[in-house]
Amino acid sequence: MSTDPTQDPLVIFTPSGKRGRFPVGTPVLTAARQLGVDLDSVCGGRGICSKCQITPSYGEFSKHGVSVADDALSEWNAVEERYDRKRGLKPGRRLGCQATVQRDVVIDVPPESQVHRQVVRKAASTRVITMDPATRLYFVEVQEPDMHEPTGDLERLARALRDEWQVEHVTADVALLGKLQPVLRKGKWQVTVALYHDHRGGPSRLLDIWPGLYEDGIYGLAIDLGSTTIAGHLCDLDTGAVLASSGLMNPQIRFGEDLMSRVSYAMMNPGGDAEMTRAVREALNSLAQELATEAGIAPSAIYEATLVCNPVMHHLALGIDPVELGQAPFALATSDSLTLPAPTLDLSALNVDAQVYILPCIAGHVGADAAAVALSERPDQSDDLVLICDVGTNAEILLGNKSRVLACSSPTGPAFEGAQISSGQRAAPGAIERIEIDPATKEPRFRVIGVDLWSDDDGFDAAVAETGISGICGSGIIEAVAEMRMAGLLDPSGLIGSAEQTGTPRCIADGRTHSYVIHDGTADGGPLISVTQGDIRAIQLAKSALYAGARLLMDEMGVDKVDRVVLAGAFGAHISPKHAMVLGMIPDVALDRVTSAGNAAGTGARIALHNIAARAEIEKVVHTITKVETAIEPKFQEHFVAANAIPHATDPFPQLSAVVPLPKVSFNTGGGGGGDGGGRRRRRRG
Amino acid sequence: MSTDPTQDPLVIFTPSGKRGRFPVGTPVLTAARQLGVDLDSVCGGRGICSKCQITPSYGEFSKHGVSVADDALSEWNAVEERYDRKRGLKPGRRLGCQATVQRDVVIDVPPESQVHRQVVRKAASTRVITMDPATRLYFVEVQEPDMHEPTGDLERLARALRDEWQVEHVTADVALLGKLQPVLRKGKWQVTVALYHDHRGGPSRLLDIWPGLYEDGIYGLAIDLGSTTIAGHLCDLDTGAVLASSGLMNPQIRFGEDLMSRVSYAMMNPGGDAEMTRAVREALNSLAQELATEAGIAPSAIYEATLVCNPVMHHLALGIDPVELGQAPFALATSDSLTLPAPTLDLSALNVDAQVYILPCIAGHVGADAAAVALSERPDQSDDLVLICDVGTNAEILLGNKSRVLACSSPTGPAFEGAQISSGQRAAPGAIERIEIDPATKEPRFRVIGVDLWSDDDGFDAAVAETGISGICGSGIIEAVAEMRMAGLLDPSGLIGSAEQTGTPRCIADGRTHSYVIHDGTADGGPLISVTQGDIRAIQLAKSALYAGARLLMDEMGVDKVDRVVLAGAFGAHISPKHAMVLGMIPDVALDRVTSAGNAAGTGARIALHNIAARAEIEKVVHTITKVETAIEPKFQEHFVAANAIPHATDPFPQLSAVVPLPKVSFNTGGGGGGDGGGRRRRRRG
Repeated sequence: MSTDPTQDPLVIFTPSGKRGRFPVGTPVLTAARQLGVDLDSVCGGRGICSKCQITPSYGEFSKHGVSVADDALSEWNAVEERYDRKRGLKPGRRLGCQATVQRDVVIDVPPESQVHRQVVRKAASTRVITMDPATRLYFVEVQEPDMHEPTGDLERLARALRDEWQVEHVTADVALLGKLQPVLRKGKWQVTVALYHDHRGGPSRLLDIWPGLYEDGIYGLAIDLGSTTIAGHLCDLDTGAVLASSGLMNPQIRFGEDLMSRVSYAMMNPGGDAEMTRAVREALNSLAQELATEAGIAPSAIYEATLVCNPVMHHLALGIDPVELGQAPFALATSDSLTLPAPTLDLSALNVDAQVYILPCIAGHVGADAAAVALSERPDQSDDLVLICDVGTNAEILLGNKSRVLACSSPTGPAFEGAQISSGQRAAPGAIERIEIDPATKEPRFRVIGVDLWSDDDGFDAAVAETGISGICGSGIIEAVAEMRMAGLLDPSGLIGSAEQTGTPRCIADGRTHSYVIHDGTADGGPLISVTQGDIRAIQLAKSALYAGARLLMDEMGVDKVDRVVLAGAFGAHISPKHAMVLGMIPDVALDRVTSAGNAAGTGARIALHNIAARAEIEKVVHTITKVETAIEPKFQEHFVAANAIPHATDPFPQLSAVVPLPKVSFNTGGGGGGDGGGRRRRRRG
Repeated sequence: MSTDPTQDPLVIFTPSGKRGRFPVGTPVLTAARQLGVDLDSVCGGRGICSKCQITPSYGEFSKHGVSVADDALSEWNAVEERYDRKRGLKPGRRLGCQATVQRDVVIDVPPESQVHRQVVRKAASTRVITMDPATRLYFVEVQEPDMHEPTGDLERLARALRDEWQVEHVTADVALLGKLQPVLRKGKWQVTVALYHDHRGGPSRLLDIWPGLYEDGIYGLAIDLGSTTIAGHLCDLDTGAVLASSGLMNPQIRFGEDLMSRVSYAMMNPGGDAEMTRAVREALNSLAQELATEAGIAPSAIYEATLVCNPVMHHLALGIDPVELGQAPFALATSDSLTLPAPTLDLSALNVDAQVYILPCIAGHVGADAAAVALSERPDQSDDLVLICDVGTNAEILLGNKSRVLACSSPTGPAFEGAQISSGQRAAPGAIERIEIDPATKEPRFRVIGVDLWSDDDGFDAAVAETGISGICGSGIIEAVAEMRMAGLLDPSGLIGSAEQTGTPRCIADGRTHSYVIHDGTADGGPLISVTQGDIRAIQLAKSALYAGARLLMDEMGVDKVDRVVLAGAFGAHISPKHAMVLGMIPDVALDRVTSAGNAAGTGARIALHNIAARAEIEKVVHTITKVETAIEPKFQEHFVAANAIPHATDPFPQLSAVVPLPKVSFNTGGGGGGDGGGRRRRRRG
């Protein structure tokens, strides 16, 4: 177990376990590089960047078969002392580029010193993203110009990047060329550059340059541009940390709530597409600005963005008239992924040299958002048959396993996002997100976002005083409708019973229909929060479209059940599987086989932002996914009509019945009302 | 000599002489393609574009050993008849894609049907440019979209270009994507596209798209951006024809006449560089507009431009502060060639998708203009030692042969362009361009641009009435000064003699110096056109700088004479070799070894515009050219001072003396005047 004096010292890295012998005096960073150990360094070993911090371990390591003496590494040198004085080095830490190997040693590389750090995403799942972003910083020492050895400053910078970092081919935007010369001189020929690497092997693009070592961060934006909501995550491109997440309404809503009304708007109004393009680009700028403010960074430090969206949003964001998406064969102007400079999309809030990567579309109305869901959930790697429903104003639905993946887009309309719902609102403090209705008393209890107590808990009133009770969010309305059905307030056709029929005064008349009152805040000047017959109809349309899409994929796959269901979407993490199934949103499956994936499209955007290889991968995967077009498939209409009932007119739900008894009630007195819900005019693509 | 019925017919193409046997019924275009005969076709053989016109020859061809029968080709078909009715086919012409081979035949491909047409440049030399432009038109038939075979329209267009034209990789600007869908549908899936090919092998860029066959032209602009003059040629990218040529003053002159004063302006005035960038970009737009108007085309039909210029102009055009070019080591921000979208240079007059190719710089102050001269004159391919002087406000000087090429830039100042000359003007109608002074009478005779007669010819006054006599252009001032020296009006130090000393009243007093009157138009309200002592000094500075630069290169090369001299520049074609040598602009050489190359830099820009291979070639050649820096070379100053005398203080001019006797006169009376010309303060880089 002791050092053999005839051999070079043994260096063992943890956690990788990589090991090798190196001559006395070898810097730890050099040893790590030679062994392929993932140890970061921006300054290339000059003792400037402190990214290569390591922790030597001392003592006996029977597992590794070595004993590490106190003098296994060289003593602290002047560089480390200066660094420690100025910035402080954590106890036990050394700079890997300064500490040299003297004897056998075990060296731990802490997570923050790894280039390819792993980032665990916020949601419940255990998925990790390996950091390998397209945009990275490099510290380089550039050769000074020499009258007798002529090359331009850019060419010498490119040579330094090749020699020091093995970056083969570098290009720079003409605007950045103006910055190059003063910065090189200010940094005394030592500069940090941000490079954007092309995952297709094209030249790397110089995004920015700073004198000396740049120590502020560089940031990226992962954007899920939905028909109703635009969600963004601002991420640190070095650590992968999500610094801020936010969403805002898509301002295109004023041109039409669903996609087809926006396409119509473009068709009916000359210049209408350009108007919508302008609106969405402005919103993206606002979002970037807002996220940057929240994170306390300058928006110009955002050097990259990834964008996922459905094809209509895709075309409108790109400034392409979406008219072809309004009619078969739903031809996309372009389906491949795109990498565009931010200014070409008028994203002026971002750094002027920022690059925007837009994931590939699959085909027709199955867009980059579906591709992002596929990248996040990887149905193509699933052993069992998984149905993934990413619920938004359109549902992106994927069904598949290792042998085959199908995808469709189904126009659910914005009801699931709380729009077109009388008391609906976005998921924000004060919104009812959970609800239970007692089957005996028909009395509700609920929880609002921002308060941990249920409404019938002691202290709820005090706790809710700050936020108030302002409305119902998407997951709340799903639970409300499902609970109403379970409590016998709603019949399978979707009719709300009257007070007489249901035996509760909470069912109040509302014209010729009825509403169920969840919370009456009018006495305190607050809102009357109820579920109206219209709300039920909107939810029925939405859930029928979702279910019909799923069934269409199952038909195409030749199956009548799936092994598991993943619910995703802006509020996907919050949907209660039981309630979703009572509603008949998803096919019957054991409740424990329904999981939530959060905003899978947004996660896909984040994965593409943080891992360059994921871009090449999803570009390959999309070509293996078969698109199923709901719009012209007659069976979609059949499935849609049959799915109008709650949970379903014909499909049995054996797994659901086993755990949730649904009362057999009927409130149809033949006297009008809303009993014709399934036949109401329905717009495509919502 | 008769057709052998057992063999396929023999097809012989002229002028290439390529021949081969093809089955009866083979279209001529197909035969040409299989033999590699250069026969154009934009529509890919669909009988639409008429580019593949050929002329069959009939009768006996003993040279080729064939006899061509009248029925050697198929009869006219409906397509040809329709084409002839609509547009007219020249007598004897056939459409190569329609006419099929029936028997042995000799087929001539007329020059206008060749893709790689040869264009003879306007100037006297026999250089030809082979047409192989980076921007070309392609007619393609794109597969219609199909709901079940999903790809975007762009991807299907790219596939058509690959299948029909072997174009491997196509990209499109996002703005063009919006045009793609309507045009494809309007053209019923037949479209013409303009593609810009990257000479480095990158993807080809879609510049524009038209429904059906696009029959209007596409155009390119070759620009020589000089310190004083901006010259442009508007060229047809298909035929290579120069449709319009024009020049305008560089508006940056208001910031400083020579390059160094502009660099100073940028250093002294914050934002001064941006001001100059704006000015030159506006001028480039005006030039494009002006040329397009002259040629009767829309400026938006300009899809490409090539730009050559010196490094200061290069940086200012690119929006880079030229401050580093004001001091050693004269580091360029970038020296490699650049391909930039026109909007990044604010060239809004051009098509929005136009690409601008900027030739590489050599190093320091030896720029893309010198590279263009090298491309035009190819000193690296010369057997004998050639000195090339491209004369402008800076002279680009190249010296070399097959073994080695040297280059420098010398700050001659704008005198050769008629600036800083009291009666100077640009070369335009009314400007004196030729002058002779009788050595006995000291009387001048001259010619003005736009009039064929000499001023002492009968009818001159009538002929000149329209243009008037307005000033002296660059070539005129060179002849004037040289003739004054030959006539004994000017001594070797550059002093103009008085009326008494010279015996002519045309030498008039002008303060303490004298001027020589060439033409007195004041009686008719016209100008007094004279050569002042100040003019002589300006010309002395200019010619000394030119000569000193040439000598410096000769020193570096280790020679004291050259085999031949090429004079180039905006007015290079007009300089009289004898007068240039009397002046001592160029080293002594037999007069018949001095030739004119016209605007060699502009020609280089045209070559790069028309031939994509020339770009790769000049990018290679620039790396083999050794830059010699005049600015910090003490010997340059020595050469400069010695070259101040006319023709030279110390260098003998034996070849010149043999043909031109120069009077030994001296007008220095010791009484002040301008005798100190060589010592006057001189700014670097003019």
